[in-house]
Amino acid sequence: MADSLRLHGVVPPLVTPLGPDGDVDAASLRRLIRFQLDAGVHGVFLCGSSGEVALLDAGQRRVVVETAVDEVAGAVPVLVGAVDSGTRQVIGHARQAGTLGADAVVVTAPYYVQPHPDEIVAHFHAVRDAAGIPLVAYDIPSAVGARLTPDIVERLVETDAVVALKDSSGDLAGFREILRRLPELPALTGSELFADTAVQLGAAGVVPGLGNVDPEGYVRLYGAAAAGDVAAAKAEQDRLARLFTITTVADRRRIGHTAGALGAFKAAVALRGVISDARTSPPLLPLTDAEIREIAALLGDLGLGPLRP
Amino acid sequence: MADSLRLHGVVPPLVTPLGPDGDVDAASLRRLIRFQLDAGVHGVFLCGSSGEVALLDAGQRRVVVETAVDEVAGAVPVLVGAVDSGTRQVIGHARQAGTLGADAVVVTAPYYVQPHPDEIVAHFHAVRDAAGIPLVAYDIPSAVGARLTPDIVERLVETDAVVALKDSSGDLAGFREILRRLPELPALTGSELFADTAVQLGAAGVVPGLGNVDPEGYVRLYGAAAAGDVAAAKAEQDRLARLFTITTVADRRRIGHTAGALGAFKAAVALRGVISDARTSPPLLPLTDAEIREIAALLGDLGLGPLRP
Amino acid sequence: MADSLRLHGVVPPLVTPLGPDGDVDAASLRRLIRFQLDAGVHGVFLCGSSGEVALLDAGQRRVVVETAVDEVAGAVPVLVGAVDSGTRQVIGHARQAGTLGADAVVVTAPYYVQPHPDEIVAHFHAVRDAAGIPLVAYDIPSAVGARLTPDIVERLVETDAVVALKDSSGDLAGFREILRRLPELPALTGSELFADTAVQLGAAGVVPGLGNVDPEGYVRLYGAAAAGDVAAAKAEQDRLARLFTITTVADRRRIGHTAGALGAFKAAVALRGVISDARTSPPLLPLTDAEIREIAALLGDLGLGPLRP
Amino acid sequence: MADSLRLHGVVPPLVTPLGPDGDVDAASLRRLIRFQLDAGVHGVFLCGSSGEVALLDAGQRRVVVETAVDEVAGAVPVLVGAVDSGTRQVIGHARQAGTLGADAVVVTAPYYVQPHPDEIVAHFHAVRDAAGIPLVAYDIPSAVGARLTPDIVERLVETDAVVALKDSSGDLAGFREILRRLPELPALTGSELFADTAVQLGAAGVVPGLGNVDPEGYVRLYGAAAAGDVAAAKAEQDRLARLFTITTVADRRRIGHTAGALGAFKAAVALRGVISDARTSPPLLPLTDAEIREIAALLGDLGLGPLRP
Repeated sequence: MADSLRLHGVVPPLVTPLGPDGDVDAASLRRLIRFQLDAGVHGVFLCGSSGEVALLDAGQRRVVVETAVDEVAGAVPVLVGAVDSGTRQVIGHARQAGTLGADAVVVTAPYYVQPHPDEIVAHFHAVRDAAGIPLVAYDIPSAVGARLTPDIVERLVETDAVVALKDSSGDLAGFREILRRLPELPALTGSELFADTAVQLGAAGVVPGLGNVDPEGYVRLYGAAAAGDVAAAKAEQDRLARLFTITTVADRRRIGHTAGALGAFKAAVALRGVISDARTSPPLLPLTDAEIREIAALLGDLGLGPLRP
Repeated sequence: MADSLRLHGVVPPLVTPLGPDGDVDAASLRRLIRFQLDAGVHGVFLCGSSGEVALLDAGQRRVVVETAVDEVAGAVPVLVGAVDSGTRQVIGHARQAGTLGADAVVVTAPYYVQPHPDEIVAHFHAVRDAAGIPLVAYDIPSAVGARLTPDIVERLVETDAVVALKDSSGDLAGFREILRRLPELPALTGSELFADTAVQLGAAGVVPGLGNVDPEGYVRLYGAAAAGDVAAAKAEQDRLARLFTITTVADRRRIGHTAGALGAFKAAVALRGVISDARTSPPLLPLTDAEIREIAALLGDLGLGPLRP
Repeated sequence: MADSLRLHGVVPPLVTPLGPDGDVDAASLRRLIRFQLDAGVHGVFLCGSSGEVALLDAGQRRVVVETAVDEVAGAVPVLVGAVDSGTRQVIGHARQAGTLGADAVVVTAPYYVQPHPDEIVAHFHAVRDAAGIPLVAYDIPSAVGARLTPDIVERLVETDAVVALKDSSGDLAGFREILRRLPELPALTGSELFADTAVQLGAAGVVPGLGNVDPEGYVRLYGAAAAGDVAAAKAEQDRLARLFTITTVADRRRIGHTAGALGAFKAAVALRGVISDARTSPPLLPLTDAEIREIAALLGDLGLGPLRP
Repeated sequence: MADSLRLHGVVPPLVTPLGPDGDVDAASLRRLIRFQLDAGVHGVFLCGSSGEVALLDAGQRRVVVETAVDEVAGAVPVLVGAVDSGTRQVIGHARQAGTLGADAVVVTAPYYVQPHPDEIVAHFHAVRDAAGIPLVAYDIPSAVGARLTPDIVERLVETDAVVALKDSSGDLAGFREILRRLPELPALTGSELFADTAVQLGAAGVVPGLGNVDPEGYVRLYGAAAAGDVAAAKAEQDRLARLFTITTVADRRRIGHTAGALGAFKAAVALRGVISDARTSPPLLPLTDAEIREIAALLGDLGLGPLRP
């Protein structure tokens, strides 16, 4: 199954559209997936950090996965974050995702408990043994505290615990070391701003939260970078870097970085007419109307208007 | 209900005994609670960090709370950690705890999502409004990343969001500032090593993980400190500081700090004959036999042998 | 010589008064020392962090030490910070201080170079061997990055490298561990806010930057705490905690914490008529007039007006 | 003068060779400089972090600069680190460097005093006004704590405070943002492992500590990257990444990272016959003989044997 995944290309970590009552807005999620598939993405990633996974309860997660598997209908691989603080809960999430038809689950280091590297490895081994679905390692120290260092990733690969890596460490030197040590491992970067560089260095693909807003841009960027067209990839990257400034529009004295970034992604996708509502899960605070207008203006400048029906 | 809580004294954060299959060992938990009540503790705290809350699934949490409420039978307040990364899940835990008969729930800042202070406050307000049970604020930045600063605690108290504070920040200066600003707030320290000082400074009580092992010691210490007997409290504190070295017996090059400390608490309570098994939840790695013998020797030196039947 | 030091009591880390050209204002420094001696302090500490040592050049340091040794005239021990990033420079500072008549030098871990614990120990050994003057270990991780952990301090004491400790770590648990392990070591706390607690736990003395402003307060506090009068010490501590809020008057969005705290100390001592000018060394930015008025008001509230001639 | 600098290309931060007494070994330094010039470097940087600047006293710094200016004799620009914790001392170092004939000084944020961004800017302005020599901004948060963020760098450039940037932040995303915002600024990376990427992104040059050992390699890499030959630059980068593993040969349980890296650079340059002795300044501890043999073996594998006379 791992082989058949052939994880590569643009795999956006999709936001989770919510309705006024806070429940998952499945119709919006279907439209978002359709928007992504039409743009040519090579996979989708549900229940990731951009999907507010840490703020979703079990029922919400189930609806997201069911909806996504149904809408994608086998067109591309469906990845699902089995993100939780402890081994037992992660196994539960992973089994459910597998039962619902996901192709792989994405697993972080344990958190809250400040694990030793050997405990991180033990975590992945226990999940692998019990989950019945391939695992993708997810390195995101800003959220979980611990690193998946190159040494840990190498141990996970050598023991067949994971079939791929999603790197959101922000440590491009460590990512490059992994690419050197493990050239066979499909390694994807979570960086919005180094997608071109990562692919040129050997990354199999990119998992950009900003891909929610402009999947076509990342598909073009990936295509150019994979084809060795450095200048075209860089030009696309520079344009997307400008778009990425939507994540810093929110006033950091008022709301957190996560709220500002995820709120901007959702606002932009809503402004483009893809999802119905930009609301995020509590306790994330919303953007102001003025901030949303600023995002709309930036989208307009970049020609990313509402989709035509 | 908040008034009737009158939270004070020694409120140990109980470990969660597990059976060979990883399920909660309810019989051991009952013996542990009986052991604590016999020692004269003034409350019990289930599903805290010492209770491995971040590693328990929903079913395990339910068994712990049901068992505890039944065994305590109203003798002292039962506190339950409603610990999770997001608001919606915390509300779910809190409602369940209230339904099962807990007296209050203990709530941390959200985690994984790096919240702004206003988002932390919004989290507590949303949980308060939906939970139907009093909240105790739980400041534990080593686990969740964010601080409950004195400013945040003051806002929570002024808006009637919390009825007490458990401080595990390690920041005694901040704790003292809270005591100065909010003399009416029952504030309990999670520090094993400054229990005497905290009470002398005005803390309402102590929540020491080490209380699992020697509740009588902390009851004596609290009594002495509350009575103004500085020398007696210090002597007891010094003895307990020596006992606390069981948490550093495990080789940190092999297992994490959390595994070493919680494993030591469980090993010691098992060696004393209170619970049946010292195992911890995955991914925490176990202590070695040699390490457990070292703990046994230290218990022997301090006269903390097995309980007589 | 170490024995004859008998370091104890209140040893304020004196600010370095500056003239309009940035040179040391020796006349103000003499008045400040006289003010301290009249208040009954048990020692003085020049060229510490409160003395802006990291911003003084070699010439300024020389003037400070010469002036202080002359003005103190043997009345109490004179400590001098031999603070620098590397071993060779620290030896140079230490030798000069000894030649000029200081009684001991205060030495931090090396900085800029991220030393290993063994390198920290080697640093102290090399300075001890070359300096010809007793060393006091100075733990101030907020400034230098590295900690002097209890293990390191124990090694320094066992190898006769230091005769005392100044603890500005903010880690009261570590400080208490040192007091337990090394009851013979004169250990002084740099905490303004835990002076009473530290002395009750066994600290030999206190080194409060706020002592520049109200040395009589700390002398009273120390006397009460050393005599076991917990209530009197706590009352004095609470009053000094209120005075300490002068360090947070400056707007942190405009100037740094160091500038705000040292600027407040100097402003208060100037307002009390002890030194002529509140200016700090570049690049520290000054307090505003409004901030200084706020400090003046707080001094007035606490009855700390200008000295009578 | 700033224009005439035209800083670009490979500008290695040279190690400071020391004799048995710890004094600067000027003859070795001359050979090292000759070795670098023969390899085609485009500048040299003395008294940087790789030059152990934080461990050198004033006399040693003087010898280093005098020797370097004399040996370079105008062939390439000579940069000198005016590195110190405070403004007044940095001005002193900068003036001396200018007097001795350096072309520019390299200046970090102040340290020890935890400066506010405005204080960092004020520091650069004060040094610029007093130094009489162009400044290069040096972002090295691992050593000094504070960051030179893109915002700060932009302010420094807009106010003509600096003529170039040396980025050792490890934050390639921030570096890329600076390149986007300030395309006219000569920005050099201190990264040994992303030299190719940095140049492809627009960096004017590279300042690799590893350039001490293999300047020809970095000159080839820079040439290829600047010419747009991505594959050739990457191949050279991969070879240099292998060479860079000499910095992790030293056992980190025994000596610090700085000691291990600088000791490896010096050992390798000594093994190549360029300098006479690999010793570092106290308190840095030396590599073991076995570690040095391991470095020798790695040099041999890569064909970097002793120079022929």
